[in-house]
Amino acid sequence: MAEQFEIIKKALNKMLDEKKYAALRDILVVMYPSDIVELFRDVDTDRIPLLFRLLPKELAAETFVEMETEDQELLIRSFSDNELKEIVDELYVDDAADLVEEMPANVVKRILKQADPEMRRSINQILRYPENSAGSLMTTEYVSLRPDMTVEEAILRIRRQGVDKETIYTCYVTGKDRTLLGMVTVKDLLLEQDDERRIGDIMLTNLIFVNTQTDQEEVAKMLAKYSFIALPVVDGEGRMVGIVTFDDAMEVIEDETSEDIALMGGVMPSEKTYLRSTVWDLFKNRIPWLLLLMVSATFTGMIITGFEDSLAAQVALTAFIPMLMGTGGNSGSQSSVTVIRALSLDELKFSDIGRVLWKELRTSVLCGVVLAAVCFVKIWLIDRLAMGNYDITWQMDLVVCLTLAVTVVCAKLVGCSLPMVAKVCKLDPAVMASPFITTIVDALSLVVYFLFARAVLGV
Amino acid sequence: MAEQFEIIKKALNKMLDEKKYAALRDILVVMYPSDIVELFRDVDTDRIPLLFRLLPKELAAETFVEMETEDQELLIRSFSDNELKEIVDELYVDDAADLVEEMPANVVKRILKQADPEMRRSINQILRYPENSAGSLMTTEYVSLRPDMTVEEAILRIRRQGVDKETIYTCYVTGKDRTLLGMVTVKDLLLEQDDERRIGDIMLTNLIFVNTQTDQEEVAKMLAKYSFIALPVVDGEGRMVGIVTFDDAMEVIEDETSEDIALMGGVMPSEKTYLRSTVWDLFKNRIPWLLLLMVSATFTGMIITGFEDSLAAQVALTAFIPMLMGTGGNSGSQSSVTVIRALSLDELKFSDIGRVLWKELRTSVLCGVVLAAVCFVKIWLIDRLAMGNYDITWQMDLVVCLTLAVTVVCAKLVGCSLPMVAKVCKLDPAVMASPFITTIVDALSLVVYFLFARAVLGV
Repeated sequence: MAEQFEIIKKALNKMLDEKKYAALRDILVVMYPSDIVELFRDVDTDRIPLLFRLLPKELAAETFVEMETEDQELLIRSFSDNELKEIVDELYVDDAADLVEEMPANVVKRILKQADPEMRRSINQILRYPENSAGSLMTTEYVSLRPDMTVEEAILRIRRQGVDKETIYTCYVTGKDRTLLGMVTVKDLLLEQDDERRIGDIMLTNLIFVNTQTDQEEVAKMLAKYSFIALPVVDGEGRMVGIVTFDDAMEVIEDETSEDIALMGGVMPSEKTYLRSTVWDLFKNRIPWLLLLMVSATFTGMIITGFEDSLAAQVALTAFIPMLMGTGGNSGSQSSVTVIRALSLDELKFSDIGRVLWKELRTSVLCGVVLAAVCFVKIWLIDRLAMGNYDITWQMDLVVCLTLAVTVVCAKLVGCSLPMVAKVCKLDPAVMASPFITTIVDALSLVVYFLFARAVLGV
Repeated sequence: MAEQFEIIKKALNKMLDEKKYAALRDILVVMYPSDIVELFRDVDTDRIPLLFRLLPKELAAETFVEMETEDQELLIRSFSDNELKEIVDELYVDDAADLVEEMPANVVKRILKQADPEMRRSINQILRYPENSAGSLMTTEYVSLRPDMTVEEAILRIRRQGVDKETIYTCYVTGKDRTLLGMVTVKDLLLEQDDERRIGDIMLTNLIFVNTQTDQEEVAKMLAKYSFIALPVVDGEGRMVGIVTFDDAMEVIEDETSEDIALMGGVMPSEKTYLRSTVWDLFKNRIPWLLLLMVSATFTGMIITGFEDSLAAQVALTAFIPMLMGTGGNSGSQSSVTVIRALSLDELKFSDIGRVLWKELRTSVLCGVVLAAVCFVKIWLIDRLAMGNYDITWQMDLVVCLTLAVTVVCAKLVGCSLPMVAKVCKLDPAVMASPFITTIVDALSLVVYFLFARAVLGV
């Protein structure tokens, strides 16, 4: 598939060079919007408006929606008012609202001027809802039916109104004042053998719906959980105002996951793709955590300074510091990453914290004992015998391995509990991942190390 | 929503205690399968078969599909042959195949005995495809149309055959030998005003399809990319054999993301949820990386031992080791996590490696310089003046900050390139995340540190 696509890309670029626009158009019209966008990525920016004008109206609008914000802006600036109107008329309301939200003020002005009054009203309605809410994600274009319609009338209505709706497969039954009463799928309608049955009799009334204020992540999870094509959105009075469709939900889930992964890696989340991000963007997203963690490492430095005499007495102790801190950090991030993922999939609630701690305690003891045992043998065989470092006594070996076991247990308990505490404090649990936990565990492991060294070796 | 659910749960448990089965049934029938599964989670295991028997056939099958493997097995063992047959008859073929794949041999035997011959044939067909391929993910139940049918005939066929199909909204047009010719959506059919038009004239022929052998992750990404409800699967001869639906794709994406996140945290991926995993499961998934990384930390130990004399001469140098290794590790994981995510979203290909390295080089120099500058001042003001550690000379401060800058640059270059190299070597890039990179960067930063110390301080 990927190879075929490369061939098509080359052929298209060649046609563009040779100005074979008719042939180009013939190829573009059978392509899918997301493939056209991919194609645009490898074309000189100033050629995009030219290519774009070759697309038929509907395909042009669909392609436009899939493009990145900067390319959209570029394109709008190259449009005449008439061309802009053609695209805006073809957009679904939720996509138009997204566009208005992301464009600079002067472009927004042009867009709203070209939108017809009804679309302008709908855009404004969507923009009034808080960012990342169901209200801002929804589209107002859905099929609504009345409970007293017959199946035949309902199908007729869909056939007449469906063209401009984002999905026709789930229809919503509303009463007076647009109160949401029930839901019928096109499958129900088509499979119903009696054309004269009333919609009110066949509609599903145990509805799953969300409020305009519901967070978009929750909306997306609900769509995924119930495998729905669309989810109705109601206002505070239970009136139907729009729908969120599964493709928007998939995008939300993808974005939220990217955000989680970025935070877990100690990077501020960004909406730009990697290749689109400038060096300055990357710098800005990364430097805060690096600075914070560097400065907080002052504590580990202080701990070492405090035990400087012990280290001076037994220099060989220093050689094990990286291994102890590293293993502690890894143990902690294993637990935190596992718990963070379980939290974001709603597999864990804060009330499970007791069960989690108990599970992690037993797991960590098991890991700690095995690691300590292997480490003891490794130090004796490799560090002492193979490498001839006879400064290493069995007491010292014991100190290292005791520290290792205790550190692993502490690290896992810290690693599993911090994300859960973050969740309760309404913070993103992903913040409590490796970089943060590592810093805490580093300090912990050093303190444990030196305390054991003092107790056992008397340094 | 969540609170309401808790109230319902309590009420249901009470009814169960009081044996009010009729009332229980009335509530269960209006619930959604995934909610019923959630309910089952908080009920004593031995009560589940009882509750399950209250569900009407279709809902029972839908609920059964959403349950975890262990609970399914438990339930099947409690079923009579007749009860088992009723459930199996209601299952979609792909779900039945999943079930057969996961159950122990003696349960599989019972399931296959109860399945009717056609279903048994379909299950066997799906099971022949490699695990994680489109063939093993697909269902064979789709609506197929002929090109010479009229729109009216097509709608009639859907109305007659649709009951048992997983989706009726995308129909596939096949020729002789089931060759895939085109696609029509129910929307196209309903919106077509001329009932006598031939399907061959209105069908879409620029099809996106996958092969039975295509990896399921690629299938899921394609469904997401094109926002399709279903994707057709063809065999080596271009014959239509099944479809993959969007809800299965969403699940695949979720699973693959969980796998990536686990690997990034140095944990072997597992299909069990956290609370379902035993301590032994968690131990097995975590100990391999911990052992590997602990043993590989022998190198950092060796480096320190090699420079033991330098450390003995300037004990204060030791205090900065954790900070240098920590910041290096964090810088590296920032880059690796960012690149791993971009790779898994297909935003990056291996051929971009030059651009990535160049971007990371500039970003890392910027980060390195800023960190070094802040660190220099911090060491002077906090470590030397505020904490009165006058062993720290400006030369020593310089050595630490030079090391910091160089380490950050190296860490980011290693962090961004290893995942890309892994991708080319057909390894999962997520393996090259924090834990692995940290180990490499730890060693690197120590070598740089001691070389600078020797050069500047002459120790």
